[in-house]
Amino acid sequence: MSQIRVTVWNEFRHEREGGEAEECYPEGIHTVLAELFESEGFDVETATLDEPEHGLSEDVIEETDVLTWWGHAAHDEVADEVVERVRQHVLDGMGLIVLHSGHFSKIFKRLMGTTCDLKWRNEGERERLWTVEPSHPIAKGVDEQIVVPTAEMYGERFDVPAPDELVFMSWFEGGEVFRSGCCYRRGSGRVFYFQPGHETYPIYQQPEIRQVLGNAVEWAVSDDNQRTEYGEVAIPPEECE
Amino acid sequence: MSQIRVTVWNEFRHEREGGEAEECYPEGIHTVLAELFESEGFDVETATLDEPEHGLSEDVIEETDVLTWWGHAAHDEVADEVVERVRQHVLDGMGLIVLHSGHFSKIFKRLMGTTCDLKWRNEGERERLWTVEPSHPIAKGVDEQIVVPTAEMYGERFDVPAPDELVFMSWFEGGEVFRSGCCYRRGSGRVFYFQPGHETYPIYQQPEIRQVLGNAVEWAVSDDNQRTEYGEVAIPPEECE
Amino acid sequence: MSQIRVTVWNEFRHEREGGEAEECYPEGIHTVLAELFESEGFDVETATLDEPEHGLSEDVIEETDVLTWWGHAAHDEVADEVVERVRQHVLDGMGLIVLHSGHFSKIFKRLMGTTCDLKWRNEGERERLWTVEPSHPIAKGVDEQIVVPTAEMYGERFDVPAPDELVFMSWFEGGEVFRSGCCYRRGSGRVFYFQPGHETYPIYQQPEIRQVLGNAVEWAVSDDNQRTEYGEVAIPPEECE
Amino acid sequence: MSQIRVTVWNEFRHEREGGEAEECYPEGIHTVLAELFESEGFDVETATLDEPEHGLSEDVIEETDVLTWWGHAAHDEVADEVVERVRQHVLDGMGLIVLHSGHFSKIFKRLMGTTCDLKWRNEGERERLWTVEPSHPIAKGVDEQIVVPTAEMYGERFDVPAPDELVFMSWFEGGEVFRSGCCYRRGSGRVFYFQPGHETYPIYQQPEIRQVLGNAVEWAVSDDNQRTEYGEVAIPPEECE
Repeated sequence: MSQIRVTVWNEFRHEREGGEAEECYPEGIHTVLAELFESEGFDVETATLDEPEHGLSEDVIEETDVLTWWGHAAHDEVADEVVERVRQHVLDGMGLIVLHSGHFSKIFKRLMGTTCDLKWRNEGERERLWTVEPSHPIAKGVDEQIVVPTAEMYGERFDVPAPDELVFMSWFEGGEVFRSGCCYRRGSGRVFYFQPGHETYPIYQQPEIRQVLGNAVEWAVSDDNQRTEYGEVAIPPEECE
Repeated sequence: MSQIRVTVWNEFRHEREGGEAEECYPEGIHTVLAELFESEGFDVETATLDEPEHGLSEDVIEETDVLTWWGHAAHDEVADEVVERVRQHVLDGMGLIVLHSGHFSKIFKRLMGTTCDLKWRNEGERERLWTVEPSHPIAKGVDEQIVVPTAEMYGERFDVPAPDELVFMSWFEGGEVFRSGCCYRRGSGRVFYFQPGHETYPIYQQPEIRQVLGNAVEWAVSDDNQRTEYGEVAIPPEECE
Repeated sequence: MSQIRVTVWNEFRHEREGGEAEECYPEGIHTVLAELFESEGFDVETATLDEPEHGLSEDVIEETDVLTWWGHAAHDEVADEVVERVRQHVLDGMGLIVLHSGHFSKIFKRLMGTTCDLKWRNEGERERLWTVEPSHPIAKGVDEQIVVPTAEMYGERFDVPAPDELVFMSWFEGGEVFRSGCCYRRGSGRVFYFQPGHETYPIYQQPEIRQVLGNAVEWAVSDDNQRTEYGEVAIPPEECE
Repeated sequence: MSQIRVTVWNEFRHEREGGEAEECYPEGIHTVLAELFESEGFDVETATLDEPEHGLSEDVIEETDVLTWWGHAAHDEVADEVVERVRQHVLDGMGLIVLHSGHFSKIFKRLMGTTCDLKWRNEGERERLWTVEPSHPIAKGVDEQIVVPTAEMYGERFDVPAPDELVFMSWFEGGEVFRSGCCYRRGSGRVFYFQPGHETYPIYQQPEIRQVLGNAVEWAVSDDNQRTEYGEVAIPPEECE
């Protein structure tokens, strides 16, 4: 197929406020993710909250195969109109990868229907992601375990629908577990939630995590060229005899 | 357990407009469903669109174990505030049974995250519901096949998330199939979508359909008395050593 | 419904060889489990490997609603004929609860189709079971977390089919996670795999674990009284016109 | 990736006995399937029941990415040793596509754990396959409906585990429905059951059916290069402090 077009969306607030987030991701998390996806050979654009329409105009989304979503402190500032636009495109076949604190984004909550709530604790614990479904495309080339040395804990119960496919489960040093790699089909689109990542830890620099993210983009592209007919339909002629 | 409290919600417009709907359900579909559920020994209330707060005040819902939903022509008139109230209660453990044209209700679309669209045709065709999961509680006492002599066709693709449990699949005379009995867990609550039913056909008078509906209410009651703690948590003392 | 009939099956070898297993379960693990289920009001029988037909004659199984399975060191000594008999009854609607090292039993492997292999380590680690699906009947009355102070570790990847419902996930002190409460429907029967338990730890004395086991029995009873017709069938007369 | 290696297995008895099967598939069904897969650019071999080891020696299977299985009248003649060999390779990552009457093959029943029984009737009815999951790779380029003009009916209940992904559902003229495109993950391998096909109907000549089969092969290839460590493991050094 032709080159996959990825749009990396970032709230991009933390990294401009000085402090640890700016030290860790001085150009913004989107820049690090964009470099990652470019190195995989994808055609990459970025978009951020403070651009007009949050950088997600109809034109931009129309040209996007897979959208990745990073947000944290300003979920409420994302306009409902843009959320609905993104949702329609997901249902029409655009892939969506929701990262870490994006679990509380409007778009993820809207697609899941649930609160998407969870337990959390930021103590820089060790996290181990275990591969549950080794034959899944998102686990391709991934070892049976990924160790993230310093992570924010996200713990169960994670209030989401049971994933269509559970690819990774995480262990945290302090005593919790988490469904950290969850696949969903919604409409004609595919959604992947991936827990690792934090604005003050260099998790997106870790090669194993980059491998997963690259796989996830490839998985999320939907080859749907089917035209489903909804609404009123006639009885097929051959059944009318 | 104590008596199950069911609230039967009905749009109740068609049946007051004269014509076939009034002939078929002169007191409203909710009355027929209420009688059904009373005969099963449940404690039943009804609520309709044109009552204040659509009859679904916080007090009413607080006292409801399972809510059944019938709507068709006036989905848009249901206030968003009431929809959100119902959704919160479902996520907190209230059961929800969505009937036939309720597939397009705000509450169902909100909980599913998708368009919930489908094909349809109202030609009074024969429908056959086949039991796919005979050991499911909702199939208890149900034969391997239920024939509905005169039905409105609903056809795939039904744009919903893959059900957590698929209990019934339907065949329609004119050539279509449908996932007509779909179970979902959302939050701490359970949702059942059941396709049969129409305002001008006496489908809810049919004993096999009544059996399924009674089973569905019993299944949808959640015994959740668990208090899930969301948000920030500490490391358990024994892991801090 | 009438009283649930439970048959508790135990390999019953370890506990007769002296040492820790005998100290922990002097009368056999089956005796402790039988007491548990009797206290729940079930009608309980026990059966062990060294009885004729391993105590699982056609008559015994015919009178069993739910069979619980504990085996460890002598899986290979279970006769294939008895395994097949049990499997047929599960497919016909008998519930099956597979405990801990029973993951490697012939009957579980036969029903799953996979190797059912896993990682393990017996260092007496702390285990935490987290409830993933709080509205599931097996989680009824269970807290969001069960702590087992001293446990044998079972770790992912657990080579089983993705469970139809995942109720519990476990965390182990040493770094692993496990899908420790897995529900499956097979034929007209229900199967629950539950990880906790060990022949030298008093895990089945723990009230929370007993609560889960009692719930699991109630869930595993299938009310199936449906007669599915398999094989060649005719076209229904009304479709022949 | 490098060229996908497909082995097409056929019982190849019907087609040598004269009559309709020989007329429809004079060189054997495997020849038609082999041509199909070659035209997709795959590297294709065939194997049949009456060859030594049924043509499925360890060497042949070792060199197979995806195995397709057609059997009907002689399931019992397939040696258990070969079935077990195939099963091990599936669990280690080989894809398996089971066609039509292969539902009753030893290998499919062994991987599913259930009876795999169903209803059937061979009256040359019209079949309609409806796409339930349009974003699935196996539905790529497939229309929302495939009409098979003359088919053997297979009807629910199909006694298999609930599929991990349900891609197609079938409607039959005579009144039945069927889950006709079912995906399963087992071990590190992927299994697809596809209902269409019959030894006396030219269904595998139909372009839409060929499209599905080509997609299914591509889907069934597992990129698993992960080495899962099973058995006893030590606590990771960093957790021992």
